[in-house]
Amino acid sequence: MSGVKSNSAGKLFGVGVGPGDPELMTLKAARALGEADVIAHFAKAGHASHSRAIAARHLRAGITELPLHYPVTTELPKCSNEYRDAIRSFYDGAAAAITTHLEAGRNVAVICAGDPLFYGSYMHLHARLAPRFATEIVAGVTGMSGCWSAAGMPIAQGDDIFTVLPATLPESELARRLADADAAVVMKVGRHLSKLRRALRCSGRLDRAIYVERGTTADAVTIPLAAKPDDEAPYFAVVLVPGWEGRP
Amino acid sequence: MSGVKSNSAGKLFGVGVGPGDPELMTLKAARALGEADVIAHFAKAGHASHSRAIAARHLRAGITELPLHYPVTTELPKCSNEYRDAIRSFYDGAAAAITTHLEAGRNVAVICAGDPLFYGSYMHLHARLAPRFATEIVAGVTGMSGCWSAAGMPIAQGDDIFTVLPATLPESELARRLADADAAVVMKVGRHLSKLRRALRCSGRLDRAIYVERGTTADAVTIPLAAKPDDEAPYFAVVLVPGWEGRP
Repeated sequence: MSGVKSNSAGKLFGVGVGPGDPELMTLKAARALGEADVIAHFAKAGHASHSRAIAARHLRAGITELPLHYPVTTELPKCSNEYRDAIRSFYDGAAAAITTHLEAGRNVAVICAGDPLFYGSYMHLHARLAPRFATEIVAGVTGMSGCWSAAGMPIAQGDDIFTVLPATLPESELARRLADADAAVVMKVGRHLSKLRRALRCSGRLDRAIYVERGTTADAVTIPLAAKPDDEAPYFAVVLVPGWEGRP
Repeated sequence: MSGVKSNSAGKLFGVGVGPGDPELMTLKAARALGEADVIAHFAKAGHASHSRAIAARHLRAGITELPLHYPVTTELPKCSNEYRDAIRSFYDGAAAAITTHLEAGRNVAVICAGDPLFYGSYMHLHARLAPRFATEIVAGVTGMSGCWSAAGMPIAQGDDIFTVLPATLPESELARRLADADAAVVMKVGRHLSKLRRALRCSGRLDRAIYVERGTTADAVTIPLAAKPDDEAPYFAVVLVPGWEGRP
């Protein structure tokens, strides 16, 4: 799709490894990780990579690893040019490091929690590298599928309208959009839970909302939001609002 | 969560087998199918089951199979009581057939294309059986993830608002909702493509829209909708509208 690509260069794989349970990786992901020459993974500076931990058992001994450490940007406002420049520069550098391997003929697999092209960091590498190199995406189970499956909660059916919302939206926008959808997943709940609770009440959805923390780990917390006594939540907590009213 | 359940009864598994490529099944799904006593799968009357075909290589020789054939309802309007009664009666019967196995202590795995709790028929069985029997959901890669991965198209990023819409909506509703989201997947395109094309144009999204047919099969069709010369589409075709404008 993107012009002539070198036959001698390596191939870039975006490999989804699913929501957290290592068994929720696909057979194709396990094979791709076993066959790659280089494994790249994102991590916060000073932290182990979450996606690498999910994939660990499928990495060959002695495989070349390329850790990609996000820059520390906590002091920069997300709307600032400085933040934008720091992030852009980080992805440019990561793409350059991968390019070196691809140009040397090595296949590079970027390990991605969830699905590579659904709210994933891999997308920034894909946008930079897909015009020059052959790429292949191995789809993965998303974090939100992992959450509603662990909760045993059917989320959407038939002609339901389903939407994914960031909890960072203003309260009135959250309320409007929650009322306008049959089913919803609200992500990045963190310090926005009190606002989200008000928006859910306003939209008539509070009684259906389920709060999920560490969705697909052994210590998952899954409770009706109305029964949660406080508004403390980690950044990656999600709230599920199931659709499917009037089920046959 | 749903009261005391019998220890001697079998367990019900909703097993997602992914979007079509048998390798996009999870390791957990492969194990669940290998361990089940009974495998149930949905199919149209007179047709082979699509989900069973995806899972075929993981079924034990001689495994007990329980095919669940949808009733033929083509002559009934979907909003009619007759249609609703036929569907309800079908799911009641399917749940009863599975109950017989569970009560005899056999574990039953229902094979589901995509993800069991995301627009899947399994949900109707789950709603009927989860109050009485232990259940476990094995999350799967959704059909839409399979489509945007095969197309190599990043769909949503950062604080994007993502929505799933049925093409059955009225044109003005489609246009309003497409304009209101950053990223969208439109399902069940079929005979609605001409209307959908007008709604995409009206919402300013036509130039971004990608048409996908048989998304994760070897003969997939993936083209910009604006370049598709006709409005012919099968029922299961989807249109992807990527978000992620202003990417860093």
